[in-house]
Amino acid sequence: MAFRPSNQQNQRPHGAGGFSRPSREDFFNKAKKRVQVAISSRDNLIIQTVGAIDELNKSSNLLFERLTEWYGMYFPEFRTPDNAKYVQGVLLIDRKNPDIAELEKLFGQQAPSIAGRARSSVGSDLSDEDMAQIRSLAMQIQLLWKMRDEIEAYQAKIAQEVCPNLSHIAGPQLAAKLVAQSGGLKRMSTFPSSTIQVLGAEKALFKHLKSGSRPPKHGLIFQHASIGMSPKKVRGKISRALAGKLTIASKADAISHNFIAEKLKVSFEEHVRRILATVPKDSRQ
Amino acid sequence: MAFRPSNQQNQRPHGAGGFSRPSREDFFNKAKKRVQVAISSRDNLIIQTVGAIDELNKSSNLLFERLTEWYGMYFPEFRTPDNAKYVQGVLLIDRKNPDIAELEKLFGQQAPSIAGRARSSVGSDLSDEDMAQIRSLAMQIQLLWKMRDEIEAYQAKIAQEVCPNLSHIAGPQLAAKLVAQSGGLKRMSTFPSSTIQVLGAEKALFKHLKSGSRPPKHGLIFQHASIGMSPKKVRGKISRALAGKLTIASKADAISHNFIAEKLKVSFEEHVRRILATVPKDSRQ
Repeated sequence: MAFRPSNQQNQRPHGAGGFSRPSREDFFNKAKKRVQVAISSRDNLIIQTVGAIDELNKSSNLLFERLTEWYGMYFPEFRTPDNAKYVQGVLLIDRKNPDIAELEKLFGQQAPSIAGRARSSVGSDLSDEDMAQIRSLAMQIQLLWKMRDEIEAYQAKIAQEVCPNLSHIAGPQLAAKLVAQSGGLKRMSTFPSSTIQVLGAEKALFKHLKSGSRPPKHGLIFQHASIGMSPKKVRGKISRALAGKLTIASKADAISHNFIAEKLKVSFEEHVRRILATVPKDSRQ
Repeated sequence: MAFRPSNQQNQRPHGAGGFSRPSREDFFNKAKKRVQVAISSRDNLIIQTVGAIDELNKSSNLLFERLTEWYGMYFPEFRTPDNAKYVQGVLLIDRKNPDIAELEKLFGQQAPSIAGRARSSVGSDLSDEDMAQIRSLAMQIQLLWKMRDEIEAYQAKIAQEVCPNLSHIAGPQLAAKLVAQSGGLKRMSTFPSSTIQVLGAEKALFKHLKSGSRPPKHGLIFQHASIGMSPKKVRGKISRALAGKLTIASKADAISHNFIAEKLKVSFEEHVRRILATVPKDSRQ
C-alpha cells in the first residue's frame, strides 16, 4: 500500500535519527498477525460445532414435524414414539400391501397391528408423485440426522484434543458446550467456580438478581449424570462440587496443559458419595 | 366391533318396526368416511407444500449463516452477495492453490481478486478433516435448496390442477400461499374480497382494529408484480382490484369449476392501466 505523503506533515520527529519509525505497513502486518492468532485457536472450532449441532437439531425437528403432518394425509393412524423409526416407516410402508417381514424387522411385535391399521386406514390415496415428495423429505431428515452424528463425533475428538481435562470429567460433549457458552477456553479459565456452575442458566440468574427469585442451582452442568440422576435435595451440593473441579480442569487445559483430570475425577466421585450418604434412603426420588 | 348389549337398554323404540336403527358401527363408518373426505381434498397438499417450503427456507438460512461463520475461520475475506455461489466457493476454493480457471467459471471477472485474497488471507490453516466437516455442511445446504426447488415445481403443478383460475391470475406460487393462508380452497371461496386483500397481513389488520393505526393495503397479494412494482400511491387501488378478481376466481375454482380466468385477467389488466394513467409521470416512484 502506498504511503500518502499528506500524512507525513502530521509526523512528529521521532527522537534522534537511526531508529526508524514503524511504517503503516508494519502496523498492518502486526494487526493481521493478531487476527490470525485470534481466529486460529482451535476452541473456535468447538464453538462452531456446538452451534452447528444446535441448528441441525432445530432444522430436523422443524422438517420432522412437517413430515408427520404431511404423511398424516396418507396414513394418519401411524404413530411411533421413536422419530427415527417413524421416518423409516414413511420410507417403507405401502399401505395397500404392507410388507410384514420388513415391518417386523423395524417394529418387532407391533408389526401386525401396524399392518392392520394400514389396511383399514382412513388416509387418502396419494399418487406416486405425491408420495415421492413426502419420501424425499423423509430422506432429507435422515441426512440431517446423519450429519449431526458425524459432527458430534468430530466435536468429541476436538474437545479431547483442546480440553482433555474438562472432557475427562464432564464428557466431551458437555465440555464442548461449556467452552462454547463461555466464548472460548481462555475466557472460561478466568471464570470463578460459581460462574461455571450456572453457565447456560443466565436467564434464571439475572431473574434472581433482579427480582430476588431463587437462584439457579445449575446451568449446562445439569446434563452431567451425577446431577440429573441424583435426588433433588442434593443437586445444589453436587453442582457446586462439580463446578469446582471443572474450574480447576479449565485452568489446567488453558494454562498449564497438565493432565490432572484423573485425580480430579476420583476426588469428585468421592465427594458425591459423601453427599449422597447424607440423604436418607426413603427420601430419594 | 362387538355391540355392547347394555347399550340396548337405552334404546328408544324407533317408530314402527321394519325400519332398523343404525348401529354403532354404521355411525363409526360414517364418521370414518367424513374424515376420509376431509383429509383427501387436494388443497391439503397445497397447504403442506407451502409449509414445507417455508421450513426448508428457514432451515437452509440457519445452516447457511453457520457456514459463513465456520468457513470464516479458514477464509474470512471471501464474500459474495450470491448465497449459492458462496456455497459453491466453499466447495471449490483451495486457499493455497486457488484454481483460477474454475474460479473464473464461477465468479467471472472477480476471480483474480478472489484468488489474490485467498493467497494473502489471514484465515487459519485447517486440517483436511476440519475442512471435510465444513464442506459436508455446504453440501447439505445445497441439498436443502434443491429439495425446495423440487417442492416448488410440484406445488405449481398441484396449484394449477386444484385452483386453475387463481393460478392463472396470481401465478401458481401466490395462489398456493393464498389457499394455505385461508386454510383451504373451500374456505377461501367464502371470504369477501376485503379479506382476501389483506390475507397474510392479519397482524397489521388487528393492530388497526385495536389501536386505530392505518389499515394494511395488502397482505400476501403484495407479491403480485402489478402491486409491488407500482407507485406507492396507487397500490391500495390496485390491491382492491386484484383482490376482487381473486375472489371471483376462488369461487370459480371451488364451486363452478369453470375456467374464467382469461377474461378476469384481461379485465384486471385494463383496470390497472386505467389506475396507472391517473398518476402524473413525474410523481412515479
